[in-house]
Amino acid sequence: MLLKALREEVLEANLELVRRGLVLYTFGNVSGVDREQGLVVIKPSGVDYDKLKPEHMAVTDLNGKVVEGSLRPSSDLDTHTLLYREFEQIGAVVHTHSEFATSFAQAGLSIPALGTTHADYFYGPVPVTAPLTDDAIGGRYVHETGVAIVSCFRGDAETPAIDPLAVPACLVNGHAPFVWGKTAHDAAHNAVVLEAVARMAYRTLTLKADTLCVSQALLDRHYFRKHGSAATYGQK
Amino acid sequence: MLLKALREEVLEANLELVRRGLVLYTFGNVSGVDREQGLVVIKPSGVDYDKLKPEHMAVTDLNGKVVEGSLRPSSDLDTHTLLYREFEQIGAVVHTHSEFATSFAQAGLSIPALGTTHADYFYGPVPVTAPLTDDAIGGRYVHETGVAIVSCFRGDAETPAIDPLAVPACLVNGHAPFVWGKTAHDAAHNAVVLEAVARMAYRTLTLKADTLCVSQALLDRHYFRKHGSAATYGQK
Amino acid sequence: MLLKALREEVLEANLELVRRGLVLYTFGNVSGVDREQGLVVIKPSGVDYDKLKPEHMAVTDLNGKVVEGSLRPSSDLDTHTLLYREFEQIGAVVHTHSEFATSFAQAGLSIPALGTTHADYFYGPVPVTAPLTDDAIGGRYVHETGVAIVSCFRGDAETPAIDPLAVPACLVNGHAPFVWGKTAHDAAHNAVVLEAVARMAYRTLTLKADTLCVSQALLDRHYFRKHGSAATYGQK
Amino acid sequence: MLLKALREEVLEANLELVRRGLVLYTFGNVSGVDREQGLVVIKPSGVDYDKLKPEHMAVTDLNGKVVEGSLRPSSDLDTHTLLYREFEQIGAVVHTHSEFATSFAQAGLSIPALGTTHADYFYGPVPVTAPLTDDAIGGRYVHETGVAIVSCFRGDAETPAIDPLAVPACLVNGHAPFVWGKTAHDAAHNAVVLEAVARMAYRTLTLKADTLCVSQALLDRHYFRKHGSAATYGQK
Repeated sequence: MLLKALREEVLEANLELVRRGLVLYTFGNVSGVDREQGLVVIKPSGVDYDKLKPEHMAVTDLNGKVVEGSLRPSSDLDTHTLLYREFEQIGAVVHTHSEFATSFAQAGLSIPALGTTHADYFYGPVPVTAPLTDDAIGGRYVHETGVAIVSCFRGDAETPAIDPLAVPACLVNGHAPFVWGKTAHDAAHNAVVLEAVARMAYRTLTLKADTLCVSQALLDRHYFRKHGSAATYGQK
Repeated sequence: MLLKALREEVLEANLELVRRGLVLYTFGNVSGVDREQGLVVIKPSGVDYDKLKPEHMAVTDLNGKVVEGSLRPSSDLDTHTLLYREFEQIGAVVHTHSEFATSFAQAGLSIPALGTTHADYFYGPVPVTAPLTDDAIGGRYVHETGVAIVSCFRGDAETPAIDPLAVPACLVNGHAPFVWGKTAHDAAHNAVVLEAVARMAYRTLTLKADTLCVSQALLDRHYFRKHGSAATYGQK
Repeated sequence: MLLKALREEVLEANLELVRRGLVLYTFGNVSGVDREQGLVVIKPSGVDYDKLKPEHMAVTDLNGKVVEGSLRPSSDLDTHTLLYREFEQIGAVVHTHSEFATSFAQAGLSIPALGTTHADYFYGPVPVTAPLTDDAIGGRYVHETGVAIVSCFRGDAETPAIDPLAVPACLVNGHAPFVWGKTAHDAAHNAVVLEAVARMAYRTLTLKADTLCVSQALLDRHYFRKHGSAATYGQK
Repeated sequence: MLLKALREEVLEANLELVRRGLVLYTFGNVSGVDREQGLVVIKPSGVDYDKLKPEHMAVTDLNGKVVEGSLRPSSDLDTHTLLYREFEQIGAVVHTHSEFATSFAQAGLSIPALGTTHADYFYGPVPVTAPLTDDAIGGRYVHETGVAIVSCFRGDAETPAIDPLAVPACLVNGHAPFVWGKTAHDAAHNAVVLEAVARMAYRTLTLKADTLCVSQALLDRHYFRKHGSAATYGQK
């Protein structure tokens, strides 16, 4: 069996989503990538979480071609593989329909950086994609979902680029969040924190609709407290 | 004992409502129909869920006449039987007062299709009935509740008809949701997802009151991903 | 030991509040009355729920004089005893600071009858008292809290009286709900349903601020479905 | 090992935050002070709660110099030690990012005294600090967080001083609450109640944005029911 350790890590990250209340029934999925072998391990489509075992995971190449496993991979596979091809530093992708992050996605709103909880994890607003065009939806829809995410991070003449490791999440307009990280554990952790941050942003904005983002100074202070070579949080 | 397997399936669906937090005390009920025999199995009225056994279920004909069972059937029986008579493709009906779906019903608002979670299960808005007239309330009230639901789906000169299998739920104005499906398992599953969809719609609309529905293209894409002959979700 | 069965019933009702998430730490209290002996059994003040035993309950007369028990009775005792003296049909009183009912009390708003869940239990809006005057607060405050509740139900030249058995709850302005019933079990059940009804009313009003009450016909239909000689809900 | 009893008390208070749902992953921290020895016991930084043992606690002096323990103390240490130096009556400090209190902090809003639940614990609004200046954030940030809290309580020409024992909590603008008490147990208890009070204030203000504070008379009555020499709540 290929990639035994990665299968176990991906399974464990899937189960973390269940424990934290981020998924209902078979919603949601986690994948991880082995960059050396160019292989992706991903949850199979529509299988109950309490029956999932490492051997049920599907293994595909970076273009989504199944190389091992008898179960059909998650229907969101083509979004995952596109993200792996485009964001070379990431090691895992998580997709959920967690309640509050999804509600921002449905409203077509990014999640602004309203406090230090956000700044500890996301170095700026969590962006929302443009709505997909009818052509994109009618074409290679799951692939196009990834394209929309990547466009958000590439930026353009008017919008600055975003570093996908500094803001490891994106809301797909009218759909739900995709989240990533260096490992499956980190990606699931980021998905859980994104939901907590979305809950607080929802409460904050329904209390005071015109709440401003935290200052750049505070965003810097908190983000770099937990990230980069000068990080001071946790044990060395 | 008639219909042993259906009794067990209906009981299990009732218990799923408890596990998912959709019912309080003895609120809520599930029924299932055996189309060949023309018989309905339904939860008894006002019995605690933790004491329910298959033999407690009431069995009636399609006009609500009890044919087996010593316990009085759910007080909502006449709504269930009307739905079975009018919607010939359905196999089970669920009624709950789940918090968020009921809140839309109380506000007299349908649940718009604001995202793909909705589109995966409901091919268009989940409609709300007109308020029942005083005559309907003073007459065969439980039957009239079913009539109001059916009217919503039949449509009229101004409102297009809705396929009850494509939108397997309806909010009764000032009351709460009725949900259905091909089996008791499916109907309970749909009721749980309806509540999740209602939660997200509530969050979305309180964040941004004028949020628009998803495009027809996105509704089509997601609905037919999980339904019909071209469905791609889950295992074959 | 006096009133052993009533002590157990009152203890059990106190624990039901814990199980249903209505109380935090030592908040909340339940009492029951023995009308023949003119004695009240009430939770002691500030004792942890997980240590409560029947013998810890305080027993007082209808004027709040302790007749058995070494622990000080709940600090809300004088509200309970006033309600027993004034509402002769009731057998038990519950007080909680449950989140949603308390929020209506803090906002100084009654809970309107927005749906059938409400109508099944409360035959009209759950009223909120007038704010207590400084004199009342500075005087026999706990007693005056009961006076404010009773005033709500007695009505006056402009406001019709309310039958305390038909609407077995009242919100004390700026404080929290008091709820009652024929037995401690019923009073706790009513307190749990009041919180569920308050949650739904909160969701409904934040979705659509001008939602109207259900019609008198619907209120009648549902209330009398569960109450009075013509009730049809549950087993005979 | 120094301060064995205090370590256990601080650990237990940290675990109370987990049990009550106030912390996610390694968020949050509790410390306690031994005034005689001038030593502080505090949770280590970034260690999972389910692995915490008394010997993992860090011990520092009142200026934050580690005197025992091999694990790095919480990154919020300098806020805790400043509070101990400035508020001489307090014995423990708690910091969480609990959802509703944090949402008020993010909105830059104090929590007004809207009801008796609040008045039982906090003798007036729970204040929010001014936003930290860029200089403060770029300098000794964690220390400056404490300075902002202390400024709130010291008052100035326009704002009256607040007694830190009468209002044992403060919201740091754009960040989250700090809470304190005479013991670690009390500080954690206050943090749990603060979150409950914040939940109710959120519900109240989203129902009725212009809700007024309770009267001074009611604030006095409830606060002094539980505090001071004339307190009547609980057992003697």
